[in-house]
Amino acid sequence: MPLSPDQKAEIAAAREQSTPTRRPTVAALEDILYEALPVLDHGFVRVVDYMGDDAAVVQAARVSYGKGTRRISEDAGLINYLMRHRHTTPFEMCEIKYHVKLPIFVARQWIRHRTANVNEYSARYSILDNEFYLPAPEHLGVQSTANRQGRGEALTGAEARRVMELLKEDAERTYAHYEDMLNEGEDGKPRDPGRQGLARELARMNLTLNFYTQWYWKTDLHNLLHFLSLRADPHAQYEIRVYAEAMLDTLRRWVPITYDAFCQYRMGGLHLSAKGLDVVKRLLAGEHVEQKASGLSPREWREMMAALGRTS
Amino acid sequence: MPLSPDQKAEIAAAREQSTPTRRPTVAALEDILYEALPVLDHGFVRVVDYMGDDAAVVQAARVSYGKGTRRISEDAGLINYLMRHRHTTPFEMCEIKYHVKLPIFVARQWIRHRTANVNEYSARYSILDNEFYLPAPEHLGVQSTANRQGRGEALTGAEARRVMELLKEDAERTYAHYEDMLNEGEDGKPRDPGRQGLARELARMNLTLNFYTQWYWKTDLHNLLHFLSLRADPHAQYEIRVYAEAMLDTLRRWVPITYDAFCQYRMGGLHLSAKGLDVVKRLLAGEHVEQKASGLSPREWREMMAALGRTS
Amino acid sequence: MPLSPDQKAEIAAAREQSTPTRRPTVAALEDILYEALPVLDHGFVRVVDYMGDDAAVVQAARVSYGKGTRRISEDAGLINYLMRHRHTTPFEMCEIKYHVKLPIFVARQWIRHRTANVNEYSARYSILDNEFYLPAPEHLGVQSTANRQGRGEALTGAEARRVMELLKEDAERTYAHYEDMLNEGEDGKPRDPGRQGLARELARMNLTLNFYTQWYWKTDLHNLLHFLSLRADPHAQYEIRVYAEAMLDTLRRWVPITYDAFCQYRMGGLHLSAKGLDVVKRLLAGEHVEQKASGLSPREWREMMAALGRTS
Amino acid sequence: MPLSPDQKAEIAAAREQSTPTRRPTVAALEDILYEALPVLDHGFVRVVDYMGDDAAVVQAARVSYGKGTRRISEDAGLINYLMRHRHTTPFEMCEIKYHVKLPIFVARQWIRHRTANVNEYSARYSILDNEFYLPAPEHLGVQSTANRQGRGEALTGAEARRVMELLKEDAERTYAHYEDMLNEGEDGKPRDPGRQGLARELARMNLTLNFYTQWYWKTDLHNLLHFLSLRADPHAQYEIRVYAEAMLDTLRRWVPITYDAFCQYRMGGLHLSAKGLDVVKRLLAGEHVEQKASGLSPREWREMMAALGRTS
Repeated sequence: MPLSPDQKAEIAAAREQSTPTRRPTVAALEDILYEALPVLDHGFVRVVDYMGDDAAVVQAARVSYGKGTRRISEDAGLINYLMRHRHTTPFEMCEIKYHVKLPIFVARQWIRHRTANVNEYSARYSILDNEFYLPAPEHLGVQSTANRQGRGEALTGAEARRVMELLKEDAERTYAHYEDMLNEGEDGKPRDPGRQGLARELARMNLTLNFYTQWYWKTDLHNLLHFLSLRADPHAQYEIRVYAEAMLDTLRRWVPITYDAFCQYRMGGLHLSAKGLDVVKRLLAGEHVEQKASGLSPREWREMMAALGRTS
Repeated sequence: MPLSPDQKAEIAAAREQSTPTRRPTVAALEDILYEALPVLDHGFVRVVDYMGDDAAVVQAARVSYGKGTRRISEDAGLINYLMRHRHTTPFEMCEIKYHVKLPIFVARQWIRHRTANVNEYSARYSILDNEFYLPAPEHLGVQSTANRQGRGEALTGAEARRVMELLKEDAERTYAHYEDMLNEGEDGKPRDPGRQGLARELARMNLTLNFYTQWYWKTDLHNLLHFLSLRADPHAQYEIRVYAEAMLDTLRRWVPITYDAFCQYRMGGLHLSAKGLDVVKRLLAGEHVEQKASGLSPREWREMMAALGRTS
Repeated sequence: MPLSPDQKAEIAAAREQSTPTRRPTVAALEDILYEALPVLDHGFVRVVDYMGDDAAVVQAARVSYGKGTRRISEDAGLINYLMRHRHTTPFEMCEIKYHVKLPIFVARQWIRHRTANVNEYSARYSILDNEFYLPAPEHLGVQSTANRQGRGEALTGAEARRVMELLKEDAERTYAHYEDMLNEGEDGKPRDPGRQGLARELARMNLTLNFYTQWYWKTDLHNLLHFLSLRADPHAQYEIRVYAEAMLDTLRRWVPITYDAFCQYRMGGLHLSAKGLDVVKRLLAGEHVEQKASGLSPREWREMMAALGRTS
Repeated sequence: MPLSPDQKAEIAAAREQSTPTRRPTVAALEDILYEALPVLDHGFVRVVDYMGDDAAVVQAARVSYGKGTRRISEDAGLINYLMRHRHTTPFEMCEIKYHVKLPIFVARQWIRHRTANVNEYSARYSILDNEFYLPAPEHLGVQSTANRQGRGEALTGAEARRVMELLKEDAERTYAHYEDMLNEGEDGKPRDPGRQGLARELARMNLTLNFYTQWYWKTDLHNLLHFLSLRADPHAQYEIRVYAEAMLDTLRRWVPITYDAFCQYRMGGLHLSAKGLDVVKRLLAGEHVEQKASGLSPREWREMMAALGRTS
């Protein structure tokens, strides 16, 4: 993750500031505030601001005048209750803001979460850096045959090397041509004074989708949990999942009670359909149940049995 | 504004806390943090948390690694530019959370602003206090004849007294019956042990719309500005406008540069329609223009001339 | 449900129209289009427009040029898959618009669903009708002791009669005073020429929360399902649940395949927490498990065992 | 715009259908329903469904039982009033759904409008077609010096030819390598049986940002107007503006009264800031005003004078 010396200095300067505040403050999150947590080969996630803590969830649920919190165990009980019964509005009372550097194809998935605020680095206005994502060899998965939108084992040998070379060469070439078309030096003057230079808003179209972009992304705790439940899921594409995993760590620092409730009631566990519940009830009552008579499709049956730890 | 001694103590306790933070902090807003700013006869607005400041708007617009701010004049120039060209996303990077106590009929207007987070005191779960809004005599306006949804001069004399009495008596009576139907003492036991007590979720329907409710309301700076531009407007109903005005004061403390830009480019000023612009151009060119030939309706013409400071 | 003769005539006239369209059309929903489906004592739900059908969900999921549908069984398989894996965006491609007449306290719950479009009858601009909700005797529930926001058995005998009288008298009296303060006759002239009349925007505050209001409410299919999953749930207050139930009927007419998937994967069924899943796995493996060792709270244990059809 | 014969047949089949409906129907929009309106070199916009018409705006504003419309002139008067005073909710009662084919870099701008429903063709799941955007020679603008995010005159001569070649060659090469890495024939079998084939979700990252994607995009009329006011604006990038212009045509067919009001009160016209209004008032009063004393920045002064048709 190449932060330039200037960027490192800016981050260090921001971290050195300290002001007193009457607002709720979370020491464990302050510890990493502004720090760039590395993700993929050139990306990062940085927490740049936050509002509220576990107590703020409790406070909002109770519409209280002061903190609204009582004993830790009571607060945890209330947060568990809210999570369990999907009373989501108190979780909306906390807010977090990230600075994220990520490949464009990942950004395109991420932006589908609409209930968030976003300011992206503008390639209409500025010139993108020469940084692109290349998968580590172990993540160069082959197309999955079981799942049209998944990947299987990693490519190996000559084929892996060939893919890496193609990705690298194409990114390098398209960037070189991007610079060439822009014809703009670091001093803002033409590199080749005999040419004019294509508009930035046009030249950018020559870049491949693995180039890095960056944005400020801000959301409330409820919508963050929703994002994480989808993007930290094993079915999510690896390249976005690693961002979600880095953010899960920041979540645990920020709101540890909410984090536990989230793991317990949202991330772990299993949703049984009406017919699935019926099967489980009958199994618990000692009945023998087979897929064909269950009303479940073979795939649903297989997935449910696996989740219940039964071989069939 | 009757805060109970307990509530005052809770607020005082919250105000006494001070913790160091690396986050941006706004001293002028910290000064009034948690304080109940009185509105109407029993209502209030309290800032209970905030995220970001003017510099955070600049930082997001520049997608910068550190503060992103330069000289004050440059930052103000950028914020003016963003406001003027309706680049709204950088303003979404700041967030504020209020605790508001307000009459139910005001809450019903307020909630129409959907891009906000809300936790309201639940009258399904808890018992509402015996507090209702009575307009001050000077705000007992008669129905406007010019504007179907406005009010004119205040009622006077016997009629004013009569209206005040009706409002007061009906609120008192419906609350007395509410308590009676609930049949629940402060200790949670029945007031009349011989009766059962109607469910809270039903009894509440007997209260009039001027009873006070309260909620936590959180929104980002962009949506706050939108709310204020509509609700601090002279056409807004007085009873919600006074809340907006109290919030304008908190806005000025929080983000003074944004506040100035907002006053300059959103609250003041005038929007000319295509035909209105044409009229102004012709007037500036020294032409004589009359309403009939202008394409404007008599009402539009009248409003525009008034805004331009011309008698006709 | 008192529709005035004029309103009945307007509805009948709307129902008589028929125009050819190239858009997807659902005959079973057209059958009841514009009709007022009665809810509570004076309320209703009317479907006034819709966009899309089951095939439109499939079409969007496939981003197809034509209908995008294949055999019914394949379409149902895809819709089940989307519902099961919470791929929600294809369901957002259908839209429905209702005209609803409902008590104000119900409207206050309903409006909390923010992802919808709403136009409410304005009591600032117009005068509300003299219609208020009175619960049927069997719905005059006592406060639940088990659930602070629920109700138990119905009141009986003298207490029931007394509550009904209080509700009725207070609503009638506040409306009489509302009219009196307005001092406006049906012809728009003052009822009492010697008085002025309070502004509508103020007089309305004297009405109790069981008065009826009405609105146009429009939402997409995904958000409708979310609304129904919360409001048709047994924990929802009866007075909003009956609206949700009437809307479930319109859902079944409109998108029968989606309706079935919704019942199967969202309304029925059971969500097991991480610890709950562990308990079920151990029970299925023949272990004896007790609440204390399960990690579940007594309440969670009790609820899960009930849902699984076990006595303990 | 290369629609395949299959796609043309699907569209023709959809257009042939006709069913009677009781819903509001707009003949002028039905005329072009499902038709692909060409945009750029391979893109299009197709209206695939709609809900409501001008009368539906009026109906919602009046919360009426029937159509709610009166004479055309009264309806237009009300719609103008709503537009002028930014009463936006009645416009939310109409909905439109488009199928759009557009370059990825345009899609990245477009998606920033969050209040819409979107289903995009998935390059995780499917293989993208070999279609990419190449600007027509007259749109190969040079970087603007006046506006960092704009473009000026078109490149000419050798430089223009060179840019076109670079764009074309890079897109062709990255697509060839994309196919090569996928190693998947049209029959789904490996093109080279000796290799495995990279997962689709990875291979797509090798494509440049001018490749075409497509999506279903649905929004309400209010948010459509907001989108068009920003994207049909002369400051918008040409490549998205042409989509907005094609959609303006569909708007005029769909809701002609709203379209006129939109042109009059939103697209045309001029917003004067507080200080700008002051300048205009003084000019109208015959005063001589200079920029320095106006409080306006030189740039604001220049822009306002230009808009008012004054040379200085």
